[in-house]
Amino acid sequence: MSQNDSRGITAPLGFRAAGLHCGIKKAGVLDLALVVSDRSGPIGGVFTTNRVIAAPVALDRLHLRHGVGRAILINSGNANACTGRPGMAAAQRTAAVVARTLGIPIHEVFIGSTGVIGRPLPVDRIIKAVPALVERVSSLGGLSAARAILTTDLKPKAIARRARINGRMVIIGGMAKGSGMIHPAMATMLGYLTTDAAITRTALQRALTQAVDDSFNCISVDGDTSTNDTVLCLANGLAGNRPITEGTSAFRQFVRLLTEACQPLALAICRDGEGVTKVVKIEVEGAGTTLQARQVANTIGTSNLVKTALFGEDANWGRVMAAIGRAGVTMDPAKIHVSFGGVPMVRNGVGLGPAAERRIAKVFHRKEFTIQVKLGQGRHRSHLWTTDLSYDYVRINASYRS
Amino acid sequence: MSQNDSRGITAPLGFRAAGLHCGIKKAGVLDLALVVSDRSGPIGGVFTTNRVIAAPVALDRLHLRHGVGRAILINSGNANACTGRPGMAAAQRTAAVVARTLGIPIHEVFIGSTGVIGRPLPVDRIIKAVPALVERVSSLGGLSAARAILTTDLKPKAIARRARINGRMVIIGGMAKGSGMIHPAMATMLGYLTTDAAITRTALQRALTQAVDDSFNCISVDGDTSTNDTVLCLANGLAGNRPITEGTSAFRQFVRLLTEACQPLALAICRDGEGVTKVVKIEVEGAGTTLQARQVANTIGTSNLVKTALFGEDANWGRVMAAIGRAGVTMDPAKIHVSFGGVPMVRNGVGLGPAAERRIAKVFHRKEFTIQVKLGQGRHRSHLWTTDLSYDYVRINASYRS
Repeated sequence: MSQNDSRGITAPLGFRAAGLHCGIKKAGVLDLALVVSDRSGPIGGVFTTNRVIAAPVALDRLHLRHGVGRAILINSGNANACTGRPGMAAAQRTAAVVARTLGIPIHEVFIGSTGVIGRPLPVDRIIKAVPALVERVSSLGGLSAARAILTTDLKPKAIARRARINGRMVIIGGMAKGSGMIHPAMATMLGYLTTDAAITRTALQRALTQAVDDSFNCISVDGDTSTNDTVLCLANGLAGNRPITEGTSAFRQFVRLLTEACQPLALAICRDGEGVTKVVKIEVEGAGTTLQARQVANTIGTSNLVKTALFGEDANWGRVMAAIGRAGVTMDPAKIHVSFGGVPMVRNGVGLGPAAERRIAKVFHRKEFTIQVKLGQGRHRSHLWTTDLSYDYVRINASYRS
Repeated sequence: MSQNDSRGITAPLGFRAAGLHCGIKKAGVLDLALVVSDRSGPIGGVFTTNRVIAAPVALDRLHLRHGVGRAILINSGNANACTGRPGMAAAQRTAAVVARTLGIPIHEVFIGSTGVIGRPLPVDRIIKAVPALVERVSSLGGLSAARAILTTDLKPKAIARRARINGRMVIIGGMAKGSGMIHPAMATMLGYLTTDAAITRTALQRALTQAVDDSFNCISVDGDTSTNDTVLCLANGLAGNRPITEGTSAFRQFVRLLTEACQPLALAICRDGEGVTKVVKIEVEGAGTTLQARQVANTIGTSNLVKTALFGEDANWGRVMAAIGRAGVTMDPAKIHVSFGGVPMVRNGVGLGPAAERRIAKVFHRKEFTIQVKLGQGRHRSHLWTTDLSYDYVRINASYRS
């Protein structure tokens, strides 16, 4: 990511942020972030599909009904999940104190939590830290906020993208933290986007859903969907462009820009997963429906046998064929073609022999490559980025939480 | 398994078997097994749900239409999968030579293969070995056959069970080889049952389907379904009982006996997976439908985050809650109860605190225990045995095939 990216969520006009240590994690480690816009504006949100949802997700969903946002408070170190009514009360208290300190309605405050499941949120420490956080927010604080939302991610993930839309330069900023392959019970993916674009609420929600579908929803580290996964996008309109509405070319430009901001964040999550030595793109085409293409890509990308073969750099294409076959999708194996890094290995369901195997063996030594599957059933496609399954994955996820 | 079990598939009257080295694997290692009944009889079969099926599975399905069996030939070291028409021709040639040598119709011969995917079957070596194999079969050869079907399993798996049904002592014998957690591209589960019971063909097929559903279909080592998975049950009627038909108490007795033969084989596959340090039973009850109960059990049992926590003996109940939530099943998290080894940890969706955590931490140190989930949605239930995900799983599955 470029130097410009480091401003992240504070890159667009009128956004300020900060991160600090409030006492959830060990001394000196940032664990609380605040993002504030100079004025309120439309907000879009996409949340975990998990039925067991954390308190902050439940609260954000309620606030999202009003459709207007101005501040986002995120803590790391504690997920506030499986904490029952006290957990919901704790989430509400933290939102309330942010609202009071900023002098805004509580429904304009969104919150996020990531960390251990099932422990009471240390709500007093958070509340005590809010005034200092509000004082500290600045247009240079994007990176500090990006650091404060990490759990065991190695690197902060921040990005900024700009484009001329409806006559004005529009900026989108973003930050994210990783999912999976990280510390026990901290497998949460959080993504926050800010933009100074003027855009209607429905257009923003639709744009975010599309961008997330093409980015965060296309990565799989270990197939586990957390109780806390959240992506929010807050827009304040300060770019002064003519408001973007659905179905216009400006909308399509905005979706493209938003996707361009989300994709590198999603890939950074893949690459930064501890234990990850490879990031592999699974491309599936020729499916009867998009859902079927996605199912095949998911089945390959979450197969432990495929993922350990990637780690071992073993050109074990038979495991990919076996994964395709058990995806639960109607197909004719005799029409399947598979290539690795552009090298054909399976034609009409049959392996192309030792020479092809030697060629794809070289592909498996690359840090990043593409597995391309053609099903020959229709015209629909999907893709997924996945990672390998390494010793370090097991080490990190098997170690004690304390 | 008891000493009696070692006769395995040759325990019932009128079954003979042998295993030998034909040259697929390295010198001295058994790689070809034959099971022969003194007379032909009904046969039942259950096969992989994978759409990419190996040639022997395709051939067995064809032969099963006739419903009569007398011999089963199984090779290890080569799966004969993704081998196209030459693979199917090779499968047919091996069946034909067994039929010719025994002087029986080809459709009474069933075959099985397990090993590397996508390599041509060394059919000439197999054919050359058939006469010696036919000469060698004996009523003491069950264990030798059980050895010859292994790939990287550590131990042969053989069993025998007997009960009085319809006035006669009926014996069921069985052998199996493991699935998953084994050498690259050799993740196949094979199970073979023999019985001297007299039983109609439809009753046998129905009984096998039920027994497999309650045994082999209840284990998950790595969630991958192979291209070769096969369970066959061959009956020769030599026990002389009044033939068992569906809907009778004798049928229910037979199903119970068959299930009692299959379950220890299935559990032995779990325990024998290389890298396995724990076997954990997931019990789900209170689901709206049996399918939903199964989906929840499967999602918990195949979660890498749950499986690494089992390996690390980390009492990380939050991961179990997260898995339940993403199972794609309608539920009210506030009605969920979870206990570990009988110790309650989650009541109405909320964790019971540090004292409960300390108690379940002790449960996680056991070699085998049960995770019990109550969904509070209805009266349906399901269960699944799963294993942990260890360093050795990664080591074994990441290593080169050669």
